[in-house]
Amino acid sequence: MAFVYTTQRILEIVGDDAECSGEFQGHIVGIASLSEAAEGDLSFLGNAKYRDTVAASQASVLLLPRDYAEAPKAGQLHIKVDSPSYALALLCRDMEKSLQPVPEPGVHPTAFVDEGAVISPSASIGPFCYIGKGAVVGAAVLESHVSIGKYAKVGDESYVYPHVVVGDYCEIGLRNRLQASCVIGSDGYGYEFRDGGHQRIPQIGNVVTESDVDVGSNTSIDRARFGSTTIGTGTKVDNQVQIAHNVRIGKHCLIIAQVGISGSTVLGDGVVLAGQAGVAGHLTIGSGAIVAGGTGVSRSLEPQEKVRGATAEPIMLYNRIAVLQRRLPDLFKRFDKLEKSVESLAERGTRE
Amino acid sequence: MAFVYTTQRILEIVGDDAECSGEFQGHIVGIASLSEAAEGDLSFLGNAKYRDTVAASQASVLLLPRDYAEAPKAGQLHIKVDSPSYALALLCRDMEKSLQPVPEPGVHPTAFVDEGAVISPSASIGPFCYIGKGAVVGAAVLESHVSIGKYAKVGDESYVYPHVVVGDYCEIGLRNRLQASCVIGSDGYGYEFRDGGHQRIPQIGNVVTESDVDVGSNTSIDRARFGSTTIGTGTKVDNQVQIAHNVRIGKHCLIIAQVGISGSTVLGDGVVLAGQAGVAGHLTIGSGAIVAGGTGVSRSLEPQEKVRGATAEPIMLYNRIAVLQRRLPDLFKRFDKLEKSVESLAERGTRE
Amino acid sequence: MAFVYTTQRILEIVGDDAECSGEFQGHIVGIASLSEAAEGDLSFLGNAKYRDTVAASQASVLLLPRDYAEAPKAGQLHIKVDSPSYALALLCRDMEKSLQPVPEPGVHPTAFVDEGAVISPSASIGPFCYIGKGAVVGAAVLESHVSIGKYAKVGDESYVYPHVVVGDYCEIGLRNRLQASCVIGSDGYGYEFRDGGHQRIPQIGNVVTESDVDVGSNTSIDRARFGSTTIGTGTKVDNQVQIAHNVRIGKHCLIIAQVGISGSTVLGDGVVLAGQAGVAGHLTIGSGAIVAGGTGVSRSLEPQEKVRGATAEPIMLYNRIAVLQRRLPDLFKRFDKLEKSVESLAERGTRE
Repeated sequence: MAFVYTTQRILEIVGDDAECSGEFQGHIVGIASLSEAAEGDLSFLGNAKYRDTVAASQASVLLLPRDYAEAPKAGQLHIKVDSPSYALALLCRDMEKSLQPVPEPGVHPTAFVDEGAVISPSASIGPFCYIGKGAVVGAAVLESHVSIGKYAKVGDESYVYPHVVVGDYCEIGLRNRLQASCVIGSDGYGYEFRDGGHQRIPQIGNVVTESDVDVGSNTSIDRARFGSTTIGTGTKVDNQVQIAHNVRIGKHCLIIAQVGISGSTVLGDGVVLAGQAGVAGHLTIGSGAIVAGGTGVSRSLEPQEKVRGATAEPIMLYNRIAVLQRRLPDLFKRFDKLEKSVESLAERGTRE
Repeated sequence: MAFVYTTQRILEIVGDDAECSGEFQGHIVGIASLSEAAEGDLSFLGNAKYRDTVAASQASVLLLPRDYAEAPKAGQLHIKVDSPSYALALLCRDMEKSLQPVPEPGVHPTAFVDEGAVISPSASIGPFCYIGKGAVVGAAVLESHVSIGKYAKVGDESYVYPHVVVGDYCEIGLRNRLQASCVIGSDGYGYEFRDGGHQRIPQIGNVVTESDVDVGSNTSIDRARFGSTTIGTGTKVDNQVQIAHNVRIGKHCLIIAQVGISGSTVLGDGVVLAGQAGVAGHLTIGSGAIVAGGTGVSRSLEPQEKVRGATAEPIMLYNRIAVLQRRLPDLFKRFDKLEKSVESLAERGTRE
Repeated sequence: MAFVYTTQRILEIVGDDAECSGEFQGHIVGIASLSEAAEGDLSFLGNAKYRDTVAASQASVLLLPRDYAEAPKAGQLHIKVDSPSYALALLCRDMEKSLQPVPEPGVHPTAFVDEGAVISPSASIGPFCYIGKGAVVGAAVLESHVSIGKYAKVGDESYVYPHVVVGDYCEIGLRNRLQASCVIGSDGYGYEFRDGGHQRIPQIGNVVTESDVDVGSNTSIDRARFGSTTIGTGTKVDNQVQIAHNVRIGKHCLIIAQVGISGSTVLGDGVVLAGQAGVAGHLTIGSGAIVAGGTGVSRSLEPQEKVRGATAEPIMLYNRIAVLQRRLPDLFKRFDKLEKSVESLAERGTRE
């Protein structure tokens, strides 16, 4: 993953309004965290908790926030910008172009395209891909071993990593990124107990993702019982997330790793579900609600509500309870003592 | 996913004992939820919480419970049955036949069948499937990229979705449904610390599923250390479930998404483990036990026991504790006040 | 999975210092748990909780700890060793050699190796494997449908199960075992909100695993934003674990099923994260720390620290709190009563 950048080229990429101090004459050949960077590396201050480690960093070029006051060391260049994290992202995007060049269009000789499938001439279909009957694939990239079901659709500029499964009739929007081994359109989990066993309820709907949706590796999104399970524009789903049938997720939500969302629940826009949170079925989660990691949500949430804990308490209350729980052993002791005091007071009163 | 149904055909499917009121002359061309249905759609009341939305529904045909009393609107047909949800399932099963016709028997030209594997002439083996040496595949459907290990078996009428892995020596029963990218027969997680490192304990057992087992997408079922990890008849496993080595699951259990079951634990029949529950190893979970979502089970459970919470409390106690925890801030305040009252009473007593 | 062992061969395998009592003349043809073993089976006492079931076991040969005092039944052989579990592991390792012979070297005719990839002549590359441009594969075994990205590396003696994805530029060390459908090198989850949407931060780093690392089925390890996500020598990762970008895991850690570790967190050596635990980002977990199942860790941990619960309490405190929580309903009742006693004492005081 070799690259070489001049400071001039870096400044071109991070933009005109960067403020520079200090100087570095050589080439940047690596990126590293503040504490691990060596000469020739670029580093950045993206999280305030690492501010104290900037001064000792051996990085040759540092992306820093505008309010960073200390002077650079000799041979070190400080570049101050509004968001060092975003400046780095711009730089990495440039590097990514050389590390991950867009594959040439065409269908790999080992791929198999079924009858009646329509593949854009700009599409790149990788080794061992299978495209089902009647499927439509736009100007997208499919890496190896991708399975596109019959009558499924993949939108232009989408990028599909190895081993992704897009089930029959499912529709992937524009500019989606589907990470390896995610499954779009497995059957919803629906049974009705009859005749001594759980009878399967057929799941004849599909999954529809809008534009700019990302889906993480090993994530599952179930097809609807009927109609569609939907993921709104710009929503980003992390790894190992489980999205059940008929869930509807709004725009620009962040669904972080190992979250589970049960059937028919509806999320508004801009909802954040942090890692390992679980949401029960048939609920409404208001726009802008924030659910802390590991939280269990079994009631609907208002817009902007912030909750945490196994019973989804308001976050301030949850934190207060957590502190008081640690004081329970003490409380019980104090209580026993107090009970005895009251008893002896009462006895004294009786004796008097 | 187009279909067209006459009301007559719908009545044929849902059964003789349906009660009708109202009338709809046209064709049903879609299924939708009560609030989203438009003219030409069929809808249903499957969950009592939506009862109030029936009257306003624009659906042309509605499947309703027998005790639903209000009259239909003009041009609307009400069909009352014992279970609207199951009536819909019957209808969807009919639709599914046209949406998902059973693939023709035969081995796809891109599939690879190893020496000595036995494939039923009624089996359908999809693109890029690999069938290992000595494996036996019955009259089953394997979609694309399925990997069947050596000496593994797949029973008649089983349906195996893309990218499923059935490991060496594992046995899949009759009428199983294995959703995409599930793994049957990964190694159990067993190590013994020796000579400065965790030494692997070989896992030479297999996984055996009985009849009518469903397994969700991205689920993992580990092979036994020796003997078999077993899943009983009619048990339905959801997505992203982890079942460790030597687990034994009884008949007709429901194991919901993201549940984890540790090694050698035994489940009776009809157990329900709700989403994200975790069960420790070497436990016995009695038949009919119900474990709420997110619960951590670290002790064996009696039959019919119902538990919830990180320490698997009886569900009524858990709910009571949850309420009282919210009152902890108040309790601590009241306690401080009471302590002062008692102090001042005691002082007064001393002064007297 | 048939095998036949003489008692003599068993003794050769478990070692010279075994103590024998009793006698079994036949052949061992199976392994089973104490309660399920029949004549001709070998069994073992690996977990003290099963000690009472040894006497009734029908096994013909039993591996027991040295301090097991009871005499064998007629026709039964007791073999006492330091660790019955490890003795069994040695035996299973021998059986494994016949059940799972190492595949012959060579590239399967259905595999596709891209230009400039370097494959060891001792490597075994299975059906439908894809090896990307510039990749280097040592004397490893790749089962079916494995995808090795461009410029990725797989070390000697590694064993890669079906459907594993090793992403571009990622490096797998020596003697790794990658279980089915795990994903090494999916994109890290990094976004910055700009221009009305979450803008992707390119993830241009990789994943590097050292020697003797095991990775479970359906596990995801994300590539670094830059630099490397690293897994140290001898660390064993179970199924369905999520390891985010730039995480660094030390040597000989045990990361059990369904654990999630957020971005940039650093684990020392010998850390144990039990099932379904979650660790927030940018934390340091000291060497030897033990995190109980289901625990939520949102602060750094000292070496050897043992924590449990949604707020990662010291484990003794957690257990104490759990007991006291069950007594909360009683405490609240006692408190109400005490409050009334104090009131009436105070009133009496006032009346006097």
